Amino acid sequence: MTDDTLKMADVSRRSLLSGSAVAAGLGVVGGVGLLPIPTAHAAGAKSDVAPGDLDEYYGFWSGGQSGEVRILGLPSMRELMRIPVFNRCSATGWGQTNESIKILTENMLPRETAFWKDKGGFPSNGDTHHPHMSFTDGSYDGRYIWVNDKANTRVARIRMDIMKVDKIISVPNAADIHGLRPQKFPKTKYIFANGEHRVPLPNDGTVLDDPSKYHAVFSAIDGEEMTVPWQVIVDGNLDNVDADYQGKYAVASCYNSEEGVTLSEMTENEQDWVVVFDIAAIEAGVAAGDFKKYEGDVPVLDGRKGSKYTRYIPISNSPHGVNASPDGKYMMINGKLSPTVSVIEMAKLPALFADKIKPRDAVVAEPELGLGPLHTAFDGRGNAYTTLFLDSQICKWDIDKAIRSFSGEKVDPIVQKIDVQYQPGHNHTSMGETKDADGKWLISLNKFSKDRYINVGPLKPESEQLIDISGDEMVIVHDGPTFAEPHDCIIVQRSIVNPDNIYNREDPMFDAIKAQAKADGIEDLEDADTVIRDGNKVRVYMYSAAPAFSLDQFTVKQGDEVTVIITNIDDVDDLTHGFTISNYGVAMEIGPLQTASVTFTADAPGVHWFYCQWFCHALHMEMRGRMLVEPA
Amino acid sequence: MTDDTLKMADVSRRSLLSGSAVAAGLGVVGGVGLLPIPTAHAAGAKSDVAPGDLDEYYGFWSGGQSGEVRILGLPSMRELMRIPVFNRCSATGWGQTNESIKILTENMLPRETAFWKDKGGFPSNGDTHHPHMSFTDGSYDGRYIWVNDKANTRVARIRMDIMKVDKIISVPNAADIHGLRPQKFPKTKYIFANGEHRVPLPNDGTVLDDPSKYHAVFSAIDGEEMTVPWQVIVDGNLDNVDADYQGKYAVASCYNSEEGVTLSEMTENEQDWVVVFDIAAIEAGVAAGDFKKYEGDVPVLDGRKGSKYTRYIPISNSPHGVNASPDGKYMMINGKLSPTVSVIEMAKLPALFADKIKPRDAVVAEPELGLGPLHTAFDGRGNAYTTLFLDSQICKWDIDKAIRSFSGEKVDPIVQKIDVQYQPGHNHTSMGETKDADGKWLISLNKFSKDRYINVGPLKPESEQLIDISGDEMVIVHDGPTFAEPHDCIIVQRSIVNPDNIYNREDPMFDAIKAQAKADGIEDLEDADTVIRDGNKVRVYMYSAAPAFSLDQFTVKQGDEVTVIITNIDDVDDLTHGFTISNYGVAMEIGPLQTASVTFTADAPGVHWFYCQWFCHALHMEMRGRMLVEPA
Repeated sequence: MTDDTLKMADVSRRSLLSGSAVAAGLGVVGGVGLLPIPTAHAAGAKSDVAPGDLDEYYGFWSGGQSGEVRILGLPSMRELMRIPVFNRCSATGWGQTNESIKILTENMLPRETAFWKDKGGFPSNGDTHHPHMSFTDGSYDGRYIWVNDKANTRVARIRMDIMKVDKIISVPNAADIHGLRPQKFPKTKYIFANGEHRVPLPNDGTVLDDPSKYHAVFSAIDGEEMTVPWQVIVDGNLDNVDADYQGKYAVASCYNSEEGVTLSEMTENEQDWVVVFDIAAIEAGVAAGDFKKYEGDVPVLDGRKGSKYTRYIPISNSPHGVNASPDGKYMMINGKLSPTVSVIEMAKLPALFADKIKPRDAVVAEPELGLGPLHTAFDGRGNAYTTLFLDSQICKWDIDKAIRSFSGEKVDPIVQKIDVQYQPGHNHTSMGETKDADGKWLISLNKFSKDRYINVGPLKPESEQLIDISGDEMVIVHDGPTFAEPHDCIIVQRSIVNPDNIYNREDPMFDAIKAQAKADGIEDLEDADTVIRDGNKVRVYMYSAAPAFSLDQFTVKQGDEVTVIITNIDDVDDLTHGFTISNYGVAMEIGPLQTASVTFTADAPGVHWFYCQWFCHALHMEMRGRMLVEPA
Repeated sequence: MTDDTLKMADVSRRSLLSGSAVAAGLGVVGGVGLLPIPTAHAAGAKSDVAPGDLDEYYGFWSGGQSGEVRILGLPSMRELMRIPVFNRCSATGWGQTNESIKILTENMLPRETAFWKDKGGFPSNGDTHHPHMSFTDGSYDGRYIWVNDKANTRVARIRMDIMKVDKIISVPNAADIHGLRPQKFPKTKYIFANGEHRVPLPNDGTVLDDPSKYHAVFSAIDGEEMTVPWQVIVDGNLDNVDADYQGKYAVASCYNSEEGVTLSEMTENEQDWVVVFDIAAIEAGVAAGDFKKYEGDVPVLDGRKGSKYTRYIPISNSPHGVNASPDGKYMMINGKLSPTVSVIEMAKLPALFADKIKPRDAVVAEPELGLGPLHTAFDGRGNAYTTLFLDSQICKWDIDKAIRSFSGEKVDPIVQKIDVQYQPGHNHTSMGETKDADGKWLISLNKFSKDRYINVGPLKPESEQLIDISGDEMVIVHDGPTFAEPHDCIIVQRSIVNPDNIYNREDPMFDAIKAQAKADGIEDLEDADTVIRDGNKVRVYMYSAAPAFSLDQFTVKQGDEVTVIITNIDDVDDLTHGFTISNYGVAMEIGPLQTASVTFTADAPGVHWFYCQWFCHALHMEMRGRMLVEPA
């Protein structure tokens, strides 16, 4: 063990951080034991949705380190669909089709393109954290969802009409996007994205072991254009972020005000902070040229302490979640290593930026809720629900009472605590991150499941609990196991999301392949059954109509670069076809009226059957043909 | 359109194959409309498992073209875990860790190794169909599950103690493994695996468009050794297979007796067949040297018509599922294009092989059940449950009555039909593929969900329905949406499966990495925090203990080949760590007491943070360190 490791081990033994020791060590948590704690079996709304009945809400779930986004139905908690984002998907061909490879690579930074050149072209992993929907006037508008990849510093956008990713960008200068939230008002223009880790700027190896020259970078992404119009350097490590309901400010939590690089260094100080960003001031700074440029031709402003673009509000050591209340009045900063949530009154921020008040004057409440407060959700009726990681509880508290208590009134803001199983991280209420918070359901995303399900080996599922909050008391009604940290989620009323059933042939996503087809003399992809040879490049055009491909065989030469382009002409709901070439590692999805393509080198001679791998018809198994590869 | 395509389109319009036309065209299906059909809302056993309660059964689910296997809990139908098998997994590093790459590549055939050399080393996709557990004395013994990859002609084995794949083999000579079932008695020695597609033998390009020289190959895999002790060439295309309860025979359905290569050619004949394999005769043939060898040094016997190793029993056009009844007496052959299930009496097979009876004499019943019978399950009380793909129903029928009806008695074998939503393929009852079929639950794996769930875009989930069969009538109690064809499944009583909570440090899976560590002068991986340089190869040894890695930084040179070896010393349930290197595409799972490793080239200079991506501790986010890459 090195000295540093010993220090770390020491930190890990600190009473603050170890569950049982904490309870013994700190203990004092308002109200616990005095309040009735409903058991898991207490009556609540039903989560069970009867066969044939429909869920009331869409849940959009981060897939965590699985790299994907998932769609759940609520209250049934059934997983309805996986959307591949940063992962490779065997079923859909995401990461293999030409169309997905274009999305995965077209907005890479030059250094990344060079790095991945001999490594498959792009990373095969992702670490999605925060899926968030586009807003209009403070509520969801059902157009897009954006989600970050912490692992490879990327942000992706998912189209809600087809539930597929259409854009992925790499964020320059920043390292490892963590917090991400869209602008809520008047309409989502910016997606705010926190570069968590501090790195040299530029991070090209000229600076290595000199942490004083490391920086964390806050980014604004244009959600329509998927570009980065500006970035801001801050002090500390950026963690979570939220936007206000006025379109004026973004607020990000920061830890590691010490700017250390080891665990013991990072947790030395008693206080860290949140950074408040003044959007209009930053835009004016960009217009005035008050920036530098590093990588990616992006204006980078200096928002470190003392800057006119930011204000730093001190918060106890390592604040974590940042959550705007649906009435737009408050921003909750969750204490993590402090048992408190700090309530910032948004109306005080103009005075703060005008230096008429001190930073801490913006804090109007700081209720002590329990150990390890990480994130807070809202019911639209004045209550907040905070996850307590170390206590394995959710604390329901009254925002107004917390404010009155902070100004000296003898009132207990805590309404109820409920045990969750176990160690909750993010939580979320139905429509709760919008002005239309409806107070029906709360989800607790728990990091451990332990013995909560039948045993599936050393790797356990996480455990998500659905809690009925429509009444006076929280009642847990469902335990849902999930794979690979479902880091965060949103819950959207179903009327807001209206996906298509079949692809639109006029969608610009097909323009490139239509242009290629036209150049190959093909008028209509929907009637194509042609093989075009172009040197050692071969383009095979087919359409698919259950239970057949329009070509039942094609012949290529060993070593040819073969592109297969297939258009599914079945304009029928739920009639997705697939295309797999046996023993060639080729597989892709072709949805109703979609065109998809894949390129490979025909290195293996012989007879190779291709087949439809997405069930389509009674004779689905017979839907196939032969690729004959002539030996070189 | 080519002529062949037109023929196919014509086939697709044949009344037999189009749902509504079929009903009009054939119509006569015993009993429909006369029997009460319970609605989805009728009373049945509860599928809802209350928070904190445990499921009674493990469900092991094929992930279809997702390439994975899933573990579900029943009756809740909650997905408890994904097991990566033939897919790449962003969360666990399957396909990226050295340990998984070894498993994915070590049993490849030489032609495959050459083919994949410049294409990432191995395919990133799979098409899993049939997960089946090891047997002892006709029932599950909880040791292994095997599953096939139709897409790339592979069979994988999953260890039930750690719920991870430990072996994958490529099957030589055969193309595209479809049906797969283990020997049931006295113990699983062989896994029977159907090479579905007919290809030249060898398939090296010397024969191309000459289908008369194509063959389908039946394989026996040694389930312990994961080798292929013998194969048998058959006539027709192999489809599904099952083994008997005596350890004597395997029975496989074949379609395309025409041996055609287009859809119209394949469906021309009125009759196809099942092939019965005499295991002892084949073993004697191997011992006697009655075989040829092609690829992979495997004895290949000739089992085509007239062979002493096989018998061909004629069955109507395109039989599909093959299912042994739990009493060991019968093998059900599901008609697919015929509305019948053919019941073969296993006791007649010795006489068939002795040529004392004609092949069709082995058929003792052939009830007409409805349109598109695909698979049959059992309740252990004498009833069979057959999926009717075209009718979108499950038909419950009385096996004894079907036999009596076949011999002329006026008795209707059909007990009940129930609508399922929509187009069922495989079905499965609790313990129903063992002698311990318990008749509690039936799963119908439906290929389409259409409007059964809130809309998630052009790609819809499949739809699995849980049916209570414990009473006299089937009652649907739960609809479960799933991603990417859950092709088949088994339902195993929970007492049979007893996984470990932490890895065993003495497991042979760690031998190779221990040997490497020893060669590097490291006595104990659990106390390692060392960087070994070996030319431009760098091995970084760490251990992980929440919330820290034993190294908080290490330095390498640009261009180094870096191997990071991490041992998780947290011997605590559910305390999996992860290791991600930012912007390097590196991520892997390290379970409690597991060692995992990953190798990459450090092409990008600069400061790269590594972090734990599997939530472990209140300071999980702080569990990280720096890889400093010095510029070349």
